[in-house]
Amino acid sequence: MMGNSENEDPLEDLIINYNELNSSVIEELDEEPSALEFMRFVARNTPFVVRSGAANWQATRTWTVNYLRELLRDESVNVAVTPAGNADAPTPYTSPDDGTTTLVFAKPHEEDQPFMTFLSYLISQEHRQQSPQTPSQATTSITTTATGEIRYAQTQNDNLRHEYLPLFAHVPATIPWARIALARDPDAINLWIGNSRSVTALHKDNYENIYVQIAGQKHFVLLPPVCHAAVNETRLRPAVYRRRRMEVSGGGEGGGEEEGLELVLEEGEGEEVPFAIWDPDRPGENATRYSALVQPMLVTLDPGDMLYLPCMWYHKVSQSCSPEGVCIAVNYRYDMDFTGPLYPLSTFVRSISSKALQRAE
Amino acid sequence: MMGNSENEDPLEDLIINYNELNSSVIEELDEEPSALEFMRFVARNTPFVVRSGAANWQATRTWTVNYLRELLRDESVNVAVTPAGNADAPTPYTSPDDGTTTLVFAKPHEEDQPFMTFLSYLISQEHRQQSPQTPSQATTSITTTATGEIRYAQTQNDNLRHEYLPLFAHVPATIPWARIALARDPDAINLWIGNSRSVTALHKDNYENIYVQIAGQKHFVLLPPVCHAAVNETRLRPAVYRRRRMEVSGGGEGGGEEEGLELVLEEGEGEEVPFAIWDPDRPGENATRYSALVQPMLVTLDPGDMLYLPCMWYHKVSQSCSPEGVCIAVNYRYDMDFTGPLYPLSTFVRSISSKALQRAE
Ligand SMILES: O=C(O)CCC(=O)C(=O)O
Ligand SMILES: O=C(O)CCC(=O)C(=O)O
Repeated sequence: MMGNSENEDPLEDLIINYNELNSSVIEELDEEPSALEFMRFVARNTPFVVRSGAANWQATRTWTVNYLRELLRDESVNVAVTPAGNADAPTPYTSPDDGTTTLVFAKPHEEDQPFMTFLSYLISQEHRQQSPQTPSQATTSITTTATGEIRYAQTQNDNLRHEYLPLFAHVPATIPWARIALARDPDAINLWIGNSRSVTALHKDNYENIYVQIAGQKHFVLLPPVCHAAVNETRLRPAVYRRRRMEVSGGGEGGGEEEGLELVLEEGEGEEVPFAIWDPDRPGENATRYSALVQPMLVTLDPGDMLYLPCMWYHKVSQSCSPEGVCIAVNYRYDMDFTGPLYPLSTFVRSISSKALQRAE
Repeated sequence: MMGNSENEDPLEDLIINYNELNSSVIEELDEEPSALEFMRFVARNTPFVVRSGAANWQATRTWTVNYLRELLRDESVNVAVTPAGNADAPTPYTSPDDGTTTLVFAKPHEEDQPFMTFLSYLISQEHRQQSPQTPSQATTSITTTATGEIRYAQTQNDNLRHEYLPLFAHVPATIPWARIALARDPDAINLWIGNSRSVTALHKDNYENIYVQIAGQKHFVLLPPVCHAAVNETRLRPAVYRRRRMEVSGGGEGGGEEEGLELVLEEGEGEEVPFAIWDPDRPGENATRYSALVQPMLVTLDPGDMLYLPCMWYHKVSQSCSPEGVCIAVNYRYDMDFTGPLYPLSTFVRSISSKALQRAE
């Protein structure tokens, strides 16, 4: 039988069978698909990239740093601030009470900043460290900003049609082949502006996602929905960074007060967040016995590239900057179709995985 | 969370979640879909029926019994012969050695018959019993044909382009929207000729199926692939009917020899056949603890109706005859796409189901 390996463990077989039947190399198109061609990928829940599909967009052609400054001179924007580029990420938290360390789900400190301030900060931080470095994980719950806090404009609330409205005219209002195929308009169109210090941790969304690179590069690590048992989904307490003035010893002026970011557990009603804690870039840590079976799909987007990221695929995203020192992307999110077998089946894989991993503990 | 019920048993949740998110009433179109519209149904693995979609086909308009006799006057055709209309069906078998009865997978006796003989047999049998009756299950392994054996032309080897070639010009050589959407030609185009005594037992295929009613009616009971745990898949020994002359007592001329059908186990290499033994029309028999959760989708096809039967859906099919006493259908089968998550996920559901049901025994 095709793709029916005969191991003992159905979760293992699931990943192995999937790998046998599917390539882990992304399909590359050299022009945009028709609505029907797109729908075939949606039906297979399989990513593709259109190289240079958005190369002629006004955004891709014109969004230099100076031009953005001009267009958004008087705007304020919402910024996610973290010590290590770890907005919405599993993060070690050390309890001030008993000194024990656990993983929590760290949300960024969010604040409005003048766009000019935000952009200059990103760029000068990027240029200070010539070779982009992998953000280190925050290992304490209090971090001073002496080493430089990390900022990322990553609101996902349809920001390009609200906060960044002056830029919206520079991208298509819809992606025709996606709109026609999915028979709906995008639920959100979002702009992402960051530098190489931010990483989006592995997670999945209930959206069909058309992700378009404008400046710099994004590096996606993609895992199909069948890999649930590999990502070690764990219930994490939610915590949030907040700014705090704190004592520092040493430093340039021999100690004193400095602004820092403190990770604070959310109290009371704060429900635990089920979240993947396996990181495909550190495969030996927080792994399950299924993690080694996964064959991640790796794709780097260059300016003008468009990625179809199907609903429910796990994705981890890191970034490199343009020569100007920024990384800019726009994505179109469409509500997924919850009818058909895929959504209930993915819930099913999730509960079988969680039972299997609990049993093993 | 949408469609996430919180029972203990993931297999139960799977069926319940599916039912919450999907209608068990088939979608009805009143004209043929475009390739894109069709692809949306393929993506959702969801059936639909186009009422009267094939009403203008030459086959639908012209295939009277007399016209078929004229076209196929000199042809021989392959006929499946069974005592109870149970070709390829779970059937009780009583061992001649020890008298024990077990379910086996009964294949029909197959033989070539002049088309004229076959058709006359079907029709006169149908007209003898005015009100179509539900075929009774064969309960012994030897059945005389005194009550009338059941014949069904049901070869599924692309017969309309081979055995029945003279008829092929009366149907479209392809279904354009299916060919364009699936980007392939049909793997097989099959003709089905039977009467109300034949039933096709619940099973599933790895094909996308466009099923078109020409004369009479077909009654489909459809279950989605997520219902695997409900159908009680069981490994059955294969057996085949063969003709045999046997002694009969009584009867019109006070006993003598008569032709009968004997069910014979296949020897040796005959591998066991995993087959659904639950029958949604007799829900209390051979049920699993999941069977009662299933909400079958019922659809009757009238002449000219076209059904999209998605790959991997369980289907049981019974039939009613036209006033002329026959039931005729044509179907187009397209190889399914094994890429994407659906095929490995359905294999996964199957192995979890089989483990769960074994545990319960
Ligand atoms: O660009 C990023 O940092 C993350 C993108 C993402 O997670 C998404 O589009 O869903
Ligand atoms: O028409 C029938 O009797 C059965 C049809 C069927 O099983 C199929 O088309 O796969």
